[in-house]
Amino acid sequence: MRYAVLGTGEVGRTLAGRLLELGHEVTLGSRTRDNPVAVEWATAEAGRAHAGTFAEAAAAGEVVVNAVAGRVALDALEAAGAEHLAGKVLVDVSNPLAFEDGQPLLDPVGSDSVGERIQRAFPQARVVKTLNTVNCRVMVDPRRVPGEHHLFVCGADARAKEQVTALLGEFGWPAGRVLDLGGIEAARAVEMYLPLWLTLFGRFGDADFNIEVRRSG
Amino acid sequence: MRYAVLGTGEVGRTLAGRLLELGHEVTLGSRTRDNPVAVEWATAEAGRAHAGTFAEAAAAGEVVVNAVAGRVALDALEAAGAEHLAGKVLVDVSNPLAFEDGQPLLDPVGSDSVGERIQRAFPQARVVKTLNTVNCRVMVDPRRVPGEHHLFVCGADARAKEQVTALLGEFGWPAGRVLDLGGIEAARAVEMYLPLWLTLFGRFGDADFNIEVRRSG
Repeated sequence: MRYAVLGTGEVGRTLAGRLLELGHEVTLGSRTRDNPVAVEWATAEAGRAHAGTFAEAAAAGEVVVNAVAGRVALDALEAAGAEHLAGKVLVDVSNPLAFEDGQPLLDPVGSDSVGERIQRAFPQARVVKTLNTVNCRVMVDPRRVPGEHHLFVCGADARAKEQVTALLGEFGWPAGRVLDLGGIEAARAVEMYLPLWLTLFGRFGDADFNIEVRRSG
Repeated sequence: MRYAVLGTGEVGRTLAGRLLELGHEVTLGSRTRDNPVAVEWATAEAGRAHAGTFAEAAAAGEVVVNAVAGRVALDALEAAGAEHLAGKVLVDVSNPLAFEDGQPLLDPVGSDSVGERIQRAFPQARVVKTLNTVNCRVMVDPRRVPGEHHLFVCGADARAKEQVTALLGEFGWPAGRVLDLGGIEAARAVEMYLPLWLTLFGRFGDADFNIEVRRSG
């Protein structure tokens, strides 16, 4: 498959690197064509690894992964271009993390979410929210954490969720550990989990953790 | 021990009933002295079970449990009286759940929490936030859910948290499954978990579930 990964931060590079390992073709997208991180990445990986603008990446990808910060996601996707997202699976892994006086805050929070905003802004994209509840190293290697811990997916398009669940399977997440929370409005729930994740991160001092949903029966 | 449980809803009655079973003396507090639910409860249980106003309950309890809805918690505690809370452990199990156009919303959310508001309004109370991340039947009987699933505690007073952790032990939660998240500001994190809980509840159709925090090492 041809993937576009938007965002050259740790999350984007980790996802892009894993997709390459899995044999996919990846364009790492950034705001400018000469982003040194993206160019270096594409040079080091060669072959199936490419660098480009958000628009070039989105145009090249059959699936687009939003790995920029939640607060700038709409800007990045606007730059990618609605015409390059239409009909495609758009995997949103971002969180709406902001800082105010050094305190982490979510924006939006409660009555809206980044996932929903993306779907509203790009109605022809098939948005699936997932992976935002774990650190990027856990995203691509769930065995870093013991146990049958879970991921969540949500979005309006059932086939898009199936396709993303298959991708998560390539990352090492069995389908039984991917809980479908329904429509994209469930993005509020998984984005609002971030403060608990941050609190646990502060307590543990490392990011190799996740939650396992336990239920009776 | 003598406990005050404020709130005659399902949460309050479940906690009060379990405290009685454990051999404690319990006053179930409500807005009015002649609340039929509370009076019936005290009559049926007799002996160590009492009913009273919020103020009478708080005055009688060595430990006070806030089991009214988060949105009315400050009003109920105001009625209980700061003088009846001073120096006491105040266990806050509430969530800031509101409904707008039938949609569940949290209020406050993000930059404040019910737990923090209570501690600010009653600085002499030793507020511990806990139990709000599970259904009340799971609160008092964690074996309803398989696995080593977790609870959280937070609050400024370390000895109060120890005392509450001991109470959770009486309910069936081993101390190793009670994660201390630090000060009362972590109430934001555990209150913001509610939307994910509600979403999972909607998906599962029952409330017998909880999360187990899995970590490496």
